[in-house]
Amino acid sequence: MTTPYDTGLDRNSANYVPLSPLSMLRRTARVYPERTAVIHGKVRRSWAETETRCRRLASALVRRGIGLGDTVAIMAPNIPEFVEAHFGVPMAGAVLNSLNIRLDAEALAFTLRHGEAKVVLTDREFSGVIAAALAQLEERPLVIDIDDPQGAGGELIGDTDYEAFLEEGDPDFAYGPPADEWQAIALNYTSGTTGDPKGVVYSHRGAYLNAISNAVDWAMPHFPVYLWTLPMFHCNGWCFPWTVTAKAGTHVCLRKPEASAIFQAIREHGVTHLCGAPIIMSMMVNAAESERRAIGQGISMMTAGAAPPAAVIEKMEAMGIEVIHVYGLTEVYGPCVVCAWKPKWDALPVAERAARKARQGVPYTMQEDLTVMDPDSLQPVPADGKTIGEIMIRGNIVMRGYLKNPRTTTASFGGGWFHSGDLGVMHPDGYIEIKDRSKDIIISGGENISSIEVEAALYKHPSVAAAAVVAKPDEKWGETPCAFVELRPGIAAEEGEIIAFCRERLAHFKCPRQVVFVELPKTSTGKIQKFRLREMAKALI
Amino acid sequence: MTTPYDTGLDRNSANYVPLSPLSMLRRTARVYPERTAVIHGKVRRSWAETETRCRRLASALVRRGIGLGDTVAIMAPNIPEFVEAHFGVPMAGAVLNSLNIRLDAEALAFTLRHGEAKVVLTDREFSGVIAAALAQLEERPLVIDIDDPQGAGGELIGDTDYEAFLEEGDPDFAYGPPADEWQAIALNYTSGTTGDPKGVVYSHRGAYLNAISNAVDWAMPHFPVYLWTLPMFHCNGWCFPWTVTAKAGTHVCLRKPEASAIFQAIREHGVTHLCGAPIIMSMMVNAAESERRAIGQGISMMTAGAAPPAAVIEKMEAMGIEVIHVYGLTEVYGPCVVCAWKPKWDALPVAERAARKARQGVPYTMQEDLTVMDPDSLQPVPADGKTIGEIMIRGNIVMRGYLKNPRTTTASFGGGWFHSGDLGVMHPDGYIEIKDRSKDIIISGGENISSIEVEAALYKHPSVAAAAVVAKPDEKWGETPCAFVELRPGIAAEEGEIIAFCRERLAHFKCPRQVVFVELPKTSTGKIQKFRLREMAKALI
Repeated sequence: MTTPYDTGLDRNSANYVPLSPLSMLRRTARVYPERTAVIHGKVRRSWAETETRCRRLASALVRRGIGLGDTVAIMAPNIPEFVEAHFGVPMAGAVLNSLNIRLDAEALAFTLRHGEAKVVLTDREFSGVIAAALAQLEERPLVIDIDDPQGAGGELIGDTDYEAFLEEGDPDFAYGPPADEWQAIALNYTSGTTGDPKGVVYSHRGAYLNAISNAVDWAMPHFPVYLWTLPMFHCNGWCFPWTVTAKAGTHVCLRKPEASAIFQAIREHGVTHLCGAPIIMSMMVNAAESERRAIGQGISMMTAGAAPPAAVIEKMEAMGIEVIHVYGLTEVYGPCVVCAWKPKWDALPVAERAARKARQGVPYTMQEDLTVMDPDSLQPVPADGKTIGEIMIRGNIVMRGYLKNPRTTTASFGGGWFHSGDLGVMHPDGYIEIKDRSKDIIISGGENISSIEVEAALYKHPSVAAAAVVAKPDEKWGETPCAFVELRPGIAAEEGEIIAFCRERLAHFKCPRQVVFVELPKTSTGKIQKFRLREMAKALI
Repeated sequence: MTTPYDTGLDRNSANYVPLSPLSMLRRTARVYPERTAVIHGKVRRSWAETETRCRRLASALVRRGIGLGDTVAIMAPNIPEFVEAHFGVPMAGAVLNSLNIRLDAEALAFTLRHGEAKVVLTDREFSGVIAAALAQLEERPLVIDIDDPQGAGGELIGDTDYEAFLEEGDPDFAYGPPADEWQAIALNYTSGTTGDPKGVVYSHRGAYLNAISNAVDWAMPHFPVYLWTLPMFHCNGWCFPWTVTAKAGTHVCLRKPEASAIFQAIREHGVTHLCGAPIIMSMMVNAAESERRAIGQGISMMTAGAAPPAAVIEKMEAMGIEVIHVYGLTEVYGPCVVCAWKPKWDALPVAERAARKARQGVPYTMQEDLTVMDPDSLQPVPADGKTIGEIMIRGNIVMRGYLKNPRTTTASFGGGWFHSGDLGVMHPDGYIEIKDRSKDIIISGGENISSIEVEAALYKHPSVAAAAVVAKPDEKWGETPCAFVELRPGIAAEEGEIIAFCRERLAHFKCPRQVVFVELPKTSTGKIQKFRLREMAKALI
């Protein structure tokens, strides 16, 4: 049946524009060309300058043959060039693949090969590991050095240098949103629970909506001064390169999130917002009194990865920093769940406030739905705060899928929900709370470590009969990997030797901090009982 | 050429959800069921209650056979039922047609007939004019009375009453976003410049994006307390029924925007935000000192329709109310252009601040583009603040088109831009400023009046040879219609008689306040020179 609304009211270029973060840069550069876009050491660049550099980057990429659906990788800490890549790369139609700077050459080579990177932008400090990764590739991509004066050590290994590359580009390069808002904008590899890393693909639409929802759910004022304490390679910095740009804010860059540098930036630049794993908060509250002095009020910090402990919340608030607890995964563009705070909770004692704030919460305003389900029946668990199920998410702030991995993509979307792999409960008031991290993931200093990947390394050791790796709670890092190893009969081994063996095969942050030799507890069907090991790990000194 | 991003990464129900304001209600009712959603006199309803009433409304409509693409009209002032209709009607798949409560029976009958309304919700106070309009229709829609105890006079003329109708509905009616975000959500008639009113069609996508952009561009905090001084029938209250809901705010209803009621509501309910035409601000600043006392600080008012004068801005600020100047039209969901304020302007003297604030400004964060063009060549005018052209808008916050009017729709989208009909300039800093209202529109007390419609009435008078109606500046109303009439040779007429003649044919607010008998100034080709008449009108006492 047709209605009067079915005809003569079609989409056209006046009333329909694909959603894209590129529109955010265009508007901010138009309205606020003179405002400071980035601060990095002594470098200050306005939005007009930043937009011009992004145009040049896009144009130079296009002139080198990069276009629709090509992957451009970047290995960098939180520097202005990384902000620029968030716009310049998609302006060229390409997809930004942010590399985890803590990975080893093998994992990087896997990523570059699987993602088919045609260009690699690399900060000088990481030239060693990137050169080693490139050496493993069959085809060498175009390599562009970022020669940041603040970077320590390393060599120039590229075919050209970032500034010279920008010179190749047209400062008036014309850009606009993509033809289709479903087009890929970013590719982020996650250490999955099963074998190889998975390449999570983001769309322009999803990046746009999450970036806006960040601003809405944080109730961000205009012109935030945003300190880059969260790695920009984590889920595209939780989409904040786009959010801060949309709000005509200032990106305050920081190569390393160290306490003194954080407090200095807060004091010097009037920082209003920052994000980071709990380790960043611990670092801040444990800093010397002299560091923490006089940072002012009205600062807000968004944290994820673990519930912020009461003592930390109290100390942060005493410093004038409000703490917002969010939850997400790479597959959902970073945070898309927020512990939405109710004014009536303000009056509670700090322990109770911390208990409220420890909950992961409710969907972002622009995320559609969040629930906890029995993963087999796909029925919601009772909202009793007790029954454990899997956390499931659906909406526009969910990845397109895993690159070149249709089987895992389909599995992860079973029943029309994204299966987070995290276990939690639904409270009677509709807030979710994680009760058990996805069993195979260890989060250390904000980095995900796949226990399976560590176990695979352990199994390569000739003395190891069986191995299981679990998270051990750690005051500084949140969690660290703890290995339980069953040795082959009659063979002995030492903890140091096992750890050294792992370090040859894995990035250092992934290696077990502790190795315990035991007979592994198993079920009647022979499955290792990780929950027992987690209890044991907790009890270890 | 295909890329790795082209396969296995499709939309599915986990990662793609049509954008719809319905998602805003669902989330707010889930997260903040206990918070106050609406205040109206002694009525207080929570978000849980409001959502249930919306579900009942949708269910009752569906049970009466209303569904996808059916039009449901509403004739009401700013009352809770109008807020509910913004959700309950689209939940049923239907389209909300808000009627201008100031229209006469003939215009209302035209609207109901053209929009093919299947249901009319009507506030008792307006039963007289609605009954007269219904009497002109060939088919009577289902008529539902809203019997608001605060409404003055009128009779119950419906087939049922709103509360009884809700009782017919299922309080657990299941709802979600539409299958297609392009689906129509609202129909708003605008008094165009040419003949009959035009029915502007909004999509779920556009309503969603404008509602969110309202919050982003106003930097709205959580839980705004929003006072309904702007008619909800104007462009769906500039999409604020949806914005306030998304931010889990409180809708403070108001049947009539009178100064004492406004100040009382501000004092009683802690209002933080309100919108309205400049006449509302004039009313407020001209209120007695005793009315204005102690309304507190931190209130923000959004205004459009005319530049706020310096004296008004100053007096509003002295009262603790910040003024935001926005610009829009029915065709762009209400405001989608904002005079984005720069902190550096704060230090300017009030006259200069007012001059800055008088400019219409820049596109909303979520609107794509705004320019001033030569309407013939479609080339942008120089950004010199002097060269006049037509204001053109494009982006997602632009209507789908005019209902059953493909010719005008196509014309209004010529060249891929929506042609606003307003004339303005582009300043060197990228801000636009209206220099001349579209020549055939008079804005009186925030209502658009088509001069052509008034002229058509005048031409029906037997003594009138020629007539032209222009805006005359008015301190209270902004503008009022002023008629210039050339009589037939040898015939005399009186002003009062002409006005009375118009009042029989037009809503009172559209009738000329003044009639001047003259020989109309014409060009050599016989075209009436309205600019001369506007000058004459300005000079009249």
